[in-house]
Amino acid sequence: MQLGQVIGSVVSTRKDERMRGHKLLIVAPLVANNGELVPKDTGSLVSADLVDAGRGDIVLIVGGSTAKTAIADPNVPIDACIIGIVDSVDL
Amino acid sequence: MQLGQVIGSVVSTRKDERMRGHKLLIVAPLVANNGELVPKDTGSLVSADLVDAGRGDIVLIVGGSTAKTAIADPNVPIDACIIGIVDSVDL
Amino acid sequence: MQLGQVIGSVVSTRKDERMRGHKLLIVAPLVANNGELVPKDTGSLVSADLVDAGRGDIVLIVGGSTAKTAIADPNVPIDACIIGIVDSVDL
Amino acid sequence: MQLGQVIGSVVSTRKDERMRGHKLLIVAPLVANNGELVPKDTGSLVSADLVDAGRGDIVLIVGGSTAKTAIADPNVPIDACIIGIVDSVDL
Amino acid sequence: MQLGQVIGSVVSTRKDERMRGHKLLIVAPLVANNGELVPKDTGSLVSADLVDAGRGDIVLIVGGSTAKTAIADPNVPIDACIIGIVDSVDL
Repeated sequence: MQLGQVIGSVVSTRKDERMRGHKLLIVAPLVANNGELVPKDTGSLVSADLVDAGRGDIVLIVGGSTAKTAIADPNVPIDACIIGIVDSVDL
Repeated sequence: MQLGQVIGSVVSTRKDERMRGHKLLIVAPLVANNGELVPKDTGSLVSADLVDAGRGDIVLIVGGSTAKTAIADPNVPIDACIIGIVDSVDL
Repeated sequence: MQLGQVIGSVVSTRKDERMRGHKLLIVAPLVANNGELVPKDTGSLVSADLVDAGRGDIVLIVGGSTAKTAIADPNVPIDACIIGIVDSVDL
Repeated sequence: MQLGQVIGSVVSTRKDERMRGHKLLIVAPLVANNGELVPKDTGSLVSADLVDAGRGDIVLIVGGSTAKTAIADPNVPIDACIIGIVDSVDL
Repeated sequence: MQLGQVIGSVVSTRKDERMRGHKLLIVAPLVANNGELVPKDTGSLVSADLVDAGRGDIVLIVGGSTAKTAIADPNVPIDACIIGIVDSVDL
C-alpha cells in the first residue's frame, strides 16, 4: 500500500458505465523522510474512494488487481482505491 | 488510475489479430502540481480507446489486468485503456 | 521481492473491515550498492506484517497480487506484505 | 502498452523449458517528446517476440499478466511480449 | 523480462513456510546502453532461483504474477524469479 494525501477530485461524465457511483479523488502519494511524511516525486494518481475520505485526509491506497478486491466486484475497471483513512503514523 | 492527455495515435497493421478494432492512442500522463495538471516525467504510453477520445482530451487511464476488465474480454492482449474523458478536475 | 527496513507503523481506524487484524508497517526499501544495503530512492511503502517484524528489522516484501497469496485470503484488499525477516545478506 | 525499438536479442540455453521456441528480443522503450519518439530513460527490457519483429523495428509491447494473454498459454512464464509492429505514429 | 546480474544472496530463517527450499538471490538489473549491459539505476531486487544460477551470472528475471507461473505453484508467495541464465546478448 501507499500513503497519500487527498488533494482534489475528478469530474468525468463520459466514462465506463461500471464506474458510476464511485467518487474519484486525486491523491498525492507520501513517503517517510527523516521522521516526516513528504510528497513522493512520482506525482499524483486517481483513486476510487471507498471510505468517504475528504480533501486533506491522509489515506491508504491499494493498486492493481487488489483494487478490484477492495471494490468486491471483479467487473469494475478501477485499478486504485482508497481503503483507509490514516489516524496517525509512528515514525 | 492516471490522468493523461491524448497527444497522438499509433498505426500498426502487423499485430495480434485480437487487437483489431481497438483504436490505439498515445497518452501523456499528467500529475497535479501546485493546483495545475502538468506532464509526468515518465513519458507517454499507448492506450486502447474505449470512450471515443480525441486529441487534446484529458482522460482517465487504467492499466495492468484492469485493462482487460475494461475491455470485458479476457482474451484481448491489451494492458492500458482509456475509460473516461475528464470534464474537470478540482485541485 | 524487495528488501526493506521497518521504520514505522500506521494507525487507521476507518478502513476496510477485511484489513482488521493486520498490522501495517512502514518499510523503507533497500538496495545493494557497493556491498552494502542502502535506502532505495523511491521512498517508503506500507506493508501488512505476516512475520511479527519489529522496528529496525530488515525484511522481505512481496507486492501486487502475490500479497494475497501470502495472506492466503483472496478477499483481503492488501497489496504488499512482509513475508520474511532477513538474518543476513551476502554481497 | 509501451512503444519500443528492437535493439538486440538474448541467447539463453539454460532456461525454463516452457520458454523454448520464443525468440527473446531486447527492446528500448520509446516515449513521445515534442512530436518525436525518444528513448525512455528507464532503459531496455526483454520481450518475447510474437510478430516476427526485426532489429530496428518500432514495436508495441505488453507487460505483466497480459503477456500470458498474448501468448495464449497461461503456463508460459513470460511477462513481456511484442504484439505489434508499428507502421507509423501520428504526434 | 529483465536482464540482471547475480550479486549476492539472502538468508532468512523466519519466513513464510511456503518459501522453504527456494534459494533467494540478490540481482542487479541490467539495461542496454551503447551496445553494453550496464546496471539499471533502480537498484537490486530479490529473486527466487529456478535455474541454479551462481554469483556473477547474467540472468533473466520475471516478476509479478508470472513468478508464480514460473514456480508452477500458485500458493507460493514469491513475486520475482530467475528463469534463465544468459549465454550472450547481441546488441
